Amino acid sequence: MNDLLKKPRKVYVSRKIEFNAAHRLFNPLRTEQENLEVYGKCSNKNGHGHNYLLEVTISGIVDCDTGFLFDLKELNTILEHEIIARFDHRHLNHDVPELQECVPTTEVLAILVWDILEERLRNINNRELSLHEVIIYETGKNAVRYLGE
Amino acid sequence: MNDLLKKPRKVYVSRKIEFNAAHRLFNPLRTEQENLEVYGKCSNKNGHGHNYLLEVTISGIVDCDTGFLFDLKELNTILEHEIIARFDHRHLNHDVPELQECVPTTEVLAILVWDILEERLRNINNRELSLHEVIIYETGKNAVRYLGE
Amino acid sequence: MNDLLKKPRKVYVSRKIEFNAAHRLFNPLRTEQENLEVYGKCSNKNGHGHNYLLEVTISGIVDCDTGFLFDLKELNTILEHEIIARFDHRHLNHDVPELQECVPTTEVLAILVWDILEERLRNINNRELSLHEVIIYETGKNAVRYLGE
Amino acid sequence: MNDLLKKPRKVYVSRKIEFNAAHRLFNPLRTEQENLEVYGKCSNKNGHGHNYLLEVTISGIVDCDTGFLFDLKELNTILEHEIIARFDHRHLNHDVPELQECVPTTEVLAILVWDILEERLRNINNRELSLHEVIIYETGKNAVRYLGE
Amino acid sequence: MNDLLKKPRKVYVSRKIEFNAAHRLFNPLRTEQENLEVYGKCSNKNGHGHNYLLEVTISGIVDCDTGFLFDLKELNTILEHEIIARFDHRHLNHDVPELQECVPTTEVLAILVWDILEERLRNINNRELSLHEVIIYETGKNAVRYLGE
Amino acid sequence: MNDLLKKPRKVYVSRKIEFNAAHRLFNPLRTEQENLEVYGKCSNKNGHGHNYLLEVTISGIVDCDTGFLFDLKELNTILEHEIIARFDHRHLNHDVPELQECVPTTEVLAILVWDILEERLRNINNRELSLHEVIIYETGKNAVRYLGE
Repeated sequence: MNDLLKKPRKVYVSRKIEFNAAHRLFNPLRTEQENLEVYGKCSNKNGHGHNYLLEVTISGIVDCDTGFLFDLKELNTILEHEIIARFDHRHLNHDVPELQECVPTTEVLAILVWDILEERLRNINNRELSLHEVIIYETGKNAVRYLGE
Repeated sequence: MNDLLKKPRKVYVSRKIEFNAAHRLFNPLRTEQENLEVYGKCSNKNGHGHNYLLEVTISGIVDCDTGFLFDLKELNTILEHEIIARFDHRHLNHDVPELQECVPTTEVLAILVWDILEERLRNINNRELSLHEVIIYETGKNAVRYLGE
Repeated sequence: MNDLLKKPRKVYVSRKIEFNAAHRLFNPLRTEQENLEVYGKCSNKNGHGHNYLLEVTISGIVDCDTGFLFDLKELNTILEHEIIARFDHRHLNHDVPELQECVPTTEVLAILVWDILEERLRNINNRELSLHEVIIYETGKNAVRYLGE
Repeated sequence: MNDLLKKPRKVYVSRKIEFNAAHRLFNPLRTEQENLEVYGKCSNKNGHGHNYLLEVTISGIVDCDTGFLFDLKELNTILEHEIIARFDHRHLNHDVPELQECVPTTEVLAILVWDILEERLRNINNRELSLHEVIIYETGKNAVRYLGE
Repeated sequence: MNDLLKKPRKVYVSRKIEFNAAHRLFNPLRTEQENLEVYGKCSNKNGHGHNYLLEVTISGIVDCDTGFLFDLKELNTILEHEIIARFDHRHLNHDVPELQECVPTTEVLAILVWDILEERLRNINNRELSLHEVIIYETGKNAVRYLGE
Repeated sequence: MNDLLKKPRKVYVSRKIEFNAAHRLFNPLRTEQENLEVYGKCSNKNGHGHNYLLEVTISGIVDCDTGFLFDLKELNTILEHEIIARFDHRHLNHDVPELQECVPTTEVLAILVWDILEERLRNINNRELSLHEVIIYETGKNAVRYLGE
């Protein structure tokens, strides 16, 4: 390929996907009243929901041959299998085994997404590729980032 | 006031608000299988959810004295009482009495919001003010508009 | 179904899709210089491109049984076949037969999309469904709407 | 040109521009207290400001030769001269002669922009071109549309 | 709580709020002409304004009990008292004591917001919570970030 | 100037610009079939295009006198000369000399933009100013960041 890639270049590639899910912020170890005090209307009994926007960022050295960090078609397939199939059109409290004992806050969700993707990407990682960042936008105003720290 | 308002001017004023709700597309008069065929993953048993974005448009003649069509603080109070209190952080199938016998599609939700607001605004309407349009954006890609037709 | 749909309700349902295409504004009946005067840098020889955002709006009476105007999965399939397959990752001047003798302005593109979808939807139209509006956003600043007039 | 434009086609072309301005909602014929009751913090003495987003829509028959409704470069020049030069980086109450006797609400601003552009476009209008709509977004939540009615 | 939070997890939580303010870029130690040369139309005498969008990011270890980094209701109350009350619907040059001797550029504003919030959050900080980043978007095109360096 | 700038403050200032370009992902050292396998429809013969959104971030100490990190008018002039003139309304494969031997992926484009701007800003850099980050959003879903590593 060309002069631009003669020296190794580390880039960060981001991909956004959306999933629509219901959740309820409720800690079963606490009373209804305690949950109401901590979570307010987010603890309403029948749950509510969000259009969760997930931004996944991977980092590594650009491939000299393809000019890609990683084939986005392959990343999309991974996100489809690992994220959409798990979370989209689901109730986080009831339908996601990994969240059964959790309060499914955006913080917890971002950590779970990181753990899932970090393990998945590590297994295919034969180059300098690594998961860099997971951001979940719960609404247009609120977001949580997790970088594996 | 000034020359610009000497002749009556009809304007359309829009206000956007968001509410976060869960729903399930499921017709109880039909079997699980029939619902799955019509609604796909939107009929998943435990429901899912959205950040619903509602855009309400009212129309009428600008008031010569205030330069307003309608006091937005008053409109916000109405939207808070009629929309946020009813729908925000609720499960549309379980928590909204008007939707008990419905499949809460975005179409049905837009019609319900229109009916609620049209009645509410008619009662305070001592001028040429009227509800013009209700738009609900279920996601960034899908929207339903209802104009009372 | 429920009381809300006892009387016929006319709604407008919109769906947004994106396609990425190249084009060149160039009228082969004119000289290079004339094209440059009319189209400026949009007539640059090798073309340029856009993330075209298409918003399609259909209108009609909500179905009492499903609560839908029209099954969005079916609409998506139509848009996939008629729009994405024709325009996505294409050069409008070279790859789209319907545009061979045209200058592919956004105006012309919106009209073509209308003609394609209007014919396609008319054939499946066994209810009060009709195409209402086609909007193409060429950039975040420019848009063209066509309503079949 | 081509078959698509053999019959006259009426399109609506929109252009968005932004201007940053200060204003104060204050009616000099009223007391400070009355203004505070009507306009709340929008009547604060030293004013506040907005990134006003203006969307101008013109309509007419697409030109068979160019494929344009109207040359956007020419529209941009008009908007630069008539809108940006008048309103951008200005204080609406102090710097805009047409608003001297007004309360510069978004309603009034949309009407003024219409009046300015409608006169300007009428004079160059040798075809079926006309101003269709002016929308001003004061914030991401509030907008006013004026259609010359 | 659950396995996901058995080890400490450092997350970054962001919240966006908007305030509408006027300002004038003008250094009183300089002449009108010098200010015009440095600040251009931003130094226009009567000021102009913006919809300032503020994004505040805090970081720390997720609380095992609540699943939160920090209660967003509490963060909102802080932002309401410290930011909205100070800046919203104000003229930055005239109404904000901390900016009296400053040119209220976006850079200076971001630093001031940091200083205010860093002190406020330090006082309530009984855990690993800290202010990470302040971003102010002056328009959709311009932004300034400050991280306390 | 004022107390806020008495100690040195390092800020990050971002500017977004858009350019509209065509490209084709195609490696001339490979066969058509190999290119199709790697790049899919992105390797379609006549190319396609995007509204590329570029976000450039510079960092350094705020100037005590102006309250600016760097004069945005000057940054805009640089971006106009170095980026818009090179890439806007161009075909990346044919019209950009630096990309002649490349596959113009977003990764490669971000690196090229960095190299161009880093050299340009280094030459005018008489203060602590430096290029911090280049982000290119190819679509609303995909982005590449490069930080010179």
